[in-house]
Amino acid sequence: MIGYLNKLNAPPTLKDSMLYSISAGGKRLRPILALAVMESFQKDPEFVLDAACAIEFVHTYSLIHDDLPSMDNDDYRRGKLTSHKVYGEAQAILAGDALLTESFSLISDNVFLNAEQKVRLLSVLSRAAGAEGMVGGQVEDLEGENRELSLKELESIHEKKTGKMLECSVLTGGIAADATEGELLALQLYARHIGIAFQIQDDILDITGNQDELGKPIGSDEANLKTTYPKLLGLEGAQKEMENHIRNSLEHLGKINRNTGILASIADYIIKRNH
Amino acid sequence: MIGYLNKLNAPPTLKDSMLYSISAGGKRLRPILALAVMESFQKDPEFVLDAACAIEFVHTYSLIHDDLPSMDNDDYRRGKLTSHKVYGEAQAILAGDALLTESFSLISDNVFLNAEQKVRLLSVLSRAAGAEGMVGGQVEDLEGENRELSLKELESIHEKKTGKMLECSVLTGGIAADATEGELLALQLYARHIGIAFQIQDDILDITGNQDELGKPIGSDEANLKTTYPKLLGLEGAQKEMENHIRNSLEHLGKINRNTGILASIADYIIKRNH
Repeated sequence: MIGYLNKLNAPPTLKDSMLYSISAGGKRLRPILALAVMESFQKDPEFVLDAACAIEFVHTYSLIHDDLPSMDNDDYRRGKLTSHKVYGEAQAILAGDALLTESFSLISDNVFLNAEQKVRLLSVLSRAAGAEGMVGGQVEDLEGENRELSLKELESIHEKKTGKMLECSVLTGGIAADATEGELLALQLYARHIGIAFQIQDDILDITGNQDELGKPIGSDEANLKTTYPKLLGLEGAQKEMENHIRNSLEHLGKINRNTGILASIADYIIKRNH
Repeated sequence: MIGYLNKLNAPPTLKDSMLYSISAGGKRLRPILALAVMESFQKDPEFVLDAACAIEFVHTYSLIHDDLPSMDNDDYRRGKLTSHKVYGEAQAILAGDALLTESFSLISDNVFLNAEQKVRLLSVLSRAAGAEGMVGGQVEDLEGENRELSLKELESIHEKKTGKMLECSVLTGGIAADATEGELLALQLYARHIGIAFQIQDDILDITGNQDELGKPIGSDEANLKTTYPKLLGLEGAQKEMENHIRNSLEHLGKINRNTGILASIADYIIKRNH
């Protein structure tokens, strides 16, 4: 990812700001999922590396734009100053725009995948990130601020805002690994359930977590009047709901007759993580 | 374009804001160029329609983001209120993000083009719009504000900010029309020269134009201390430079042994336009 950005013939401020956010760390869950699918299908991970980076570019652009003063107005992300605090608002918007755009170059110029694979990857990524996916979810999220949401509304926001990109991550691995349509569907449903579980655990950690391990203040959801799973279901109910989703995700995974142990352990990590 | 947006299963505010800017008019020069290439090669224009719309989506997203308070802070565009004046800043940013993202869906899901054509179109579009192209040009433009630019700096900004997308427009037509590599190069150079000519004429119209025909106030470049071609070359020198570029563009066009009359007339229109 950093190699690709360094090689760009772009204005230094733009490259710096793109590199700043890409290098800010994070769990790298999305690229890991794509690579884990390749591993499960015993395929060379190099084939999916550019596409996995592209997904991380899109994820990073979304964080930069979400943090902007006109959106969530956050000064810190992953313990570092947010892009607009370092580079100013205009540069932050443009760094996000550039990361989103370059993600499509990364896939279309890849040398390992064939044209059919690339077109499908580009379609899956743009649909997951676009108006029916991530951007649509962010709009619903902004419109739902400062009012009580129903469980259905909450799920719709998370499904669009984070779920679709997680589904995109496993589909990317599956497409690069020449998975069958049945295997792709099972992968997608696996990701859908771990996506919801991941979000529930986020909400739980905001109540029960440790500020130092999380890298962000706890209790912020309640302070911001955010509707969360524990708020709607109680802490115990949310915990149970999360476990249900993990169980469902593993059931779908079980339909794939491959070496999917690593994908199962990612589902397990989501329950046990403390940050 | 409007049909595609109407069919999106996206939050109403997001669809409205995307439609608002796409329906705001404008010269549609970019899609027209792509269609004019198909016409010159006597190919069915339907094959390139989605890709031409995609280019207009990208152009429109760039206008929405350029107009934002943290960038050019413009209240009006094409005689209508800008997106952030109508929908607020957050929605305007997201409408731009969604238009950019959907442009890649439009091409990757097209049913007329083959996978090789689509991958090449997606590569050309993302390169033209990305860090080395349009976004890079906008960064240079912002950084060049309030200081005198050299002719070389001015040309670099325009080449990236508007030139690359005009080149992308004719390349899109050429790729969809199965043009040879030689024909693609000639088309690209034709577009490069009309792009510069277009920009010079913009600068000239800001001095000699009629406010009602232009739809925006004249004299704004001088008021904003912008470096322009007439400022660097004088009004007569700028006029001559523009004519040189049009002559060059027609020379490159002459290398293509097709029915390129319509492309020649577009070059002619650029000199004669009054808005």
